[in-house]
Amino acid sequence: MNFVELLKLRRSIRNYKDQPVQEEVIMEIIKESTLSPNAGNEQPWEFVIVNNKKMLKRMSDESKKNILNRINANPKDYAGRYRGMLENDSYNVYYDAPCAVIVLGRSGLKNLFVDCALAASYFMMAATSRGLGTCWVNLGAEIRDPELIKELGVPENSKIVAPIALGYPAKIPAAPNRKEPKIARIIT
Amino acid sequence: MNFVELLKLRRSIRNYKDQPVQEEVIMEIIKESTLSPNAGNEQPWEFVIVNNKKMLKRMSDESKKNILNRINANPKDYAGRYRGMLENDSYNVYYDAPCAVIVLGRSGLKNLFVDCALAASYFMMAATSRGLGTCWVNLGAEIRDPELIKELGVPENSKIVAPIALGYPAKIPAAPNRKEPKIARIIT
Repeated sequence: MNFVELLKLRRSIRNYKDQPVQEEVIMEIIKESTLSPNAGNEQPWEFVIVNNKKMLKRMSDESKKNILNRINANPKDYAGRYRGMLENDSYNVYYDAPCAVIVLGRSGLKNLFVDCALAASYFMMAATSRGLGTCWVNLGAEIRDPELIKELGVPENSKIVAPIALGYPAKIPAAPNRKEPKIARIIT
Repeated sequence: MNFVELLKLRRSIRNYKDQPVQEEVIMEIIKESTLSPNAGNEQPWEFVIVNNKKMLKRMSDESKKNILNRINANPKDYAGRYRGMLENDSYNVYYDAPCAVIVLGRSGLKNLFVDCALAASYFMMAATSRGLGTCWVNLGAEIRDPELIKELGVPENSKIVAPIALGYPAKIPAAPNRKEPKIARIIT
């Protein structure tokens, strides 16, 4: 796929077809995502593949519960704007996608979040280039139940950085408007 | 350019041709970089274009000095491994590129670093698709001199997230080996 086309097709997808994603395709996408630049070639990432809707529902419920507790403890929390959605039982933070991949980062590394975000960016483009859709689901990252963390295979020294919903898009929405890029200064 | 080709050509470039980069092309790349996903469509980024080698040399000297001071204060600092390079007067952290673009992020936003990293990722690909080379230069980010910050036009409420060297590559190196991606678990 042509890069300019890819830039336009890579949208956050919130509506998926009921069509499974082959594990082989997921592995190809993960492999391409590790070609991203990263500080000192540390490659601080690791991946969990959740190709199971029941597990995704459990992850969604756990994350919603924890974020609502956080909002209740601190009504100024940035996630407060999502309270209505989070209180809706039928709202699944993974948008009922058939699959999700979680990018984990090794704790203690300085560039952990940035490096994993770069890999996530590659992941989303690599998925788009195969006709798949993705959505980086921040609201799905608040998984604290030790039992669930264990079932997901998250190693003790790792953090959940990017949970990415993955599936075939039912609809690719138009891009929301972007502001004209703000150029603070041009030095020539 | 085809995406798979792009993935292979996007390398961190540390050796640039002495060929200027047209401002128009830089603006196109910046525009494409703002198509990246970002939390809540905040678009928390802003850009400084430094198309001037003298300014880049000043930025490099300032950043090297500050990182060396940091290492001297704390010999366990992660940048300690770069001490030799940083002490070398002829080493320019921007690799003598003709140009650099700094991605700034608005302070106080929760997803600042991740969102700007996503835009930086798009920037590096958009540059590659035009035959340009880039290198995200972490060692160039330590600019503290208030006078220099003012000259660069960095607003008070902004942080330097990603200084990216930009220019035509003298040589595109082979990709350093990637480890096989580590899959913590597959849940089916």
